[in-house]
Amino acid sequence: MTSINRIERILEGFDPVKNGLDGDFVLTKLTAMKGCGCKVPRDVLLQLLQTFKTDLVINNDEIDIGLDSCVIPLRHPGLRLVQTTDFFYPLVDDPYIMGRITCANVLSDLYAMGVSECDNMLMLLGIAVDLNETQRDIIVRLFIQGFKDAADEADTKIRGGQTVRCPWLLLGGVASSVAHESEIIKVDRAVPGDVLVLTKPIGGQVAVNSYEWIKNNKGKIEELGLDSSKIRKAFQQVCEQMSRLNRNAAKILHKYEAHSSTDVTGFGLFGHSENLARVQKQQVEFVIEKLPIIEYMDEIADRMIEKGGEGFRLFQGRSAETSGGLLVAMSMENAQKYITELSALDNAPAWIVGRVIAKTTDSFASIAPDVVRLSIPSSI
Amino acid sequence: MTSINRIERILEGFDPVKNGLDGDFVLTKLTAMKGCGCKVPRDVLLQLLQTFKTDLVINNDEIDIGLDSCVIPLRHPGLRLVQTTDFFYPLVDDPYIMGRITCANVLSDLYAMGVSECDNMLMLLGIAVDLNETQRDIIVRLFIQGFKDAADEADTKIRGGQTVRCPWLLLGGVASSVAHESEIIKVDRAVPGDVLVLTKPIGGQVAVNSYEWIKNNKGKIEELGLDSSKIRKAFQQVCEQMSRLNRNAAKILHKYEAHSSTDVTGFGLFGHSENLARVQKQQVEFVIEKLPIIEYMDEIADRMIEKGGEGFRLFQGRSAETSGGLLVAMSMENAQKYITELSALDNAPAWIVGRVIAKTTDSFASIAPDVVRLSIPSSI
Repeated sequence: MTSINRIERILEGFDPVKNGLDGDFVLTKLTAMKGCGCKVPRDVLLQLLQTFKTDLVINNDEIDIGLDSCVIPLRHPGLRLVQTTDFFYPLVDDPYIMGRITCANVLSDLYAMGVSECDNMLMLLGIAVDLNETQRDIIVRLFIQGFKDAADEADTKIRGGQTVRCPWLLLGGVASSVAHESEIIKVDRAVPGDVLVLTKPIGGQVAVNSYEWIKNNKGKIEELGLDSSKIRKAFQQVCEQMSRLNRNAAKILHKYEAHSSTDVTGFGLFGHSENLARVQKQQVEFVIEKLPIIEYMDEIADRMIEKGGEGFRLFQGRSAETSGGLLVAMSMENAQKYITELSALDNAPAWIVGRVIAKTTDSFASIAPDVVRLSIPSSI
Repeated sequence: MTSINRIERILEGFDPVKNGLDGDFVLTKLTAMKGCGCKVPRDVLLQLLQTFKTDLVINNDEIDIGLDSCVIPLRHPGLRLVQTTDFFYPLVDDPYIMGRITCANVLSDLYAMGVSECDNMLMLLGIAVDLNETQRDIIVRLFIQGFKDAADEADTKIRGGQTVRCPWLLLGGVASSVAHESEIIKVDRAVPGDVLVLTKPIGGQVAVNSYEWIKNNKGKIEELGLDSSKIRKAFQQVCEQMSRLNRNAAKILHKYEAHSSTDVTGFGLFGHSENLARVQKQQVEFVIEKLPIIEYMDEIADRMIEKGGEGFRLFQGRSAETSGGLLVAMSMENAQKYITELSALDNAPAWIVGRVIAKTTDSFASIAPDVVRLSIPSSI
């Protein structure tokens, strides 16, 4: 089985008939929630996890359960188990690209810790009960191939997993690395004066949802007066970035002495900024001054707000991302070099989106009053 | 938070009102499938996994993806990552006991490899969309406490996980151990002359389902002329064994030189015997000569068969178990000592249920024509 070129496949678009499915087959109908938008809200989660709090040992070497990967000291000197899991529902119709995205999204939590070598992946699969056997076989095979191609690209292997029947198609994985402590970035060392780098634009939820409207809710397209061809382009763009590994971004975190990093997913740029600022050793606040947004998605959000909506809370940085970029705190000088090197490696831009200041108020993160929106065109 | 005594809790029974829920609240209604019965059938799974086959490196050190844990050689000499995941749906109504069972079931795959030290657990949780906030908080807290109490008993910690919304309540976990290669049993060394030991009786699916009939399908109880009090007793028995860790059974595998082992879950005693026999270095067949069955469950299966049903295929060893016992191949002499020591440790019996013979036919496993049924009473 040879791997499939993800860019070509994204640009070509998904044709169910060509893949052996009925013309009206829509993968995303197999769930009522999309991608990382299905996450249980952070405050609810933390409250529920209180059950653990009094008993869980959270020390300097271990990362709070609310953040990315867990890092576990082992019985073997110098070694740590770095581990993460994620599962969610289909948010694009091509099972192959969905497999790529799922794998990239799981790995991203390791990458956020600066760990670029993954020792093993498990694949988690809930097969929607509504699927007939033909559909199931086609979809699962394509999904697995996408997951595997992404794992190959990450130089790792899938050796295990679990498959159950489920009302919705459920997709996920577990990534584990047994790393020497020197491989792991200390993510709690942000200091006032650092800048914040973001490696993929936001607006993924807008792109995925507005593309859904083209398929299922033409009225919304008309009501907002949207341009379907621009939405299609944005959808290609988000598919590319969701299926792009954050591995290069992780590999050079060490070289440029990152002080702190996380990946941006379900809680949005603001939510993850807040989460990350909260666990820093110094009392700091992350201030977001720029919002790099997938082209045209800001316009959609604006139109929605004009009509009295919330526009996915995109401009508050609350719009969910799936397999979003890394958010990194480092010195200004290093940030510029990091961006230059990363852009060359990934053939995609990255930006300085804010800065770290000493904490003076109750809030751990804020959007600057004069925040600048950047409209980011597709690089494919 | 102090841990709850599982035996007392099981014997007391689950009262929704005492736990803050409505009197008619039934956890198991939050899914249409129960426990390991939700597994995708093995042949379907293997066929779907064909996508991997040509690319996956399966060598002597790595275990086929169809079996229990995966064992991954690491970059660090002598060390292996042993890892497993499992998730499924509620099959008992007490969220606390369900948490215990889920944790015991996940850990069991490590234990089947002789690995008794788990370095980390992740908790996987899909919160049913139908739950209101009060229900959600009560259920999730009880579930987490059960999961955590079992993890404590296993001397491990939960440090990570994922929580999403899902139509059904989805429960699961990941267990990982970074073990020295000497800690891991070679599970492919069964030889003709070995006997097969089983550490928990079968019939779990019958117990769980017949207990459901008492709640939701009284007609079935009447039709088959069943004794509800005997079913309630069997249900307590299965709750105890599902929530009992296979850790003691694992710890002494080394001492008694087990040649092969697995744990019995969704594919039933026969299915797992077949899977295990298939991967042995020598060409062997596992012959099952005894079926230790939870008391009264054989009678239920008999009545169902009399009425033209399949009786959960209990007597074919095809009835699904959740968090079932270990199935171990070892010498007769060691098996007797193993059973004596384990029975003392766990205060529960174990049995020699069959033997390993040289393979002469196409089949890897068989039920002896003169198979003997043992009726196993509850030990609580």
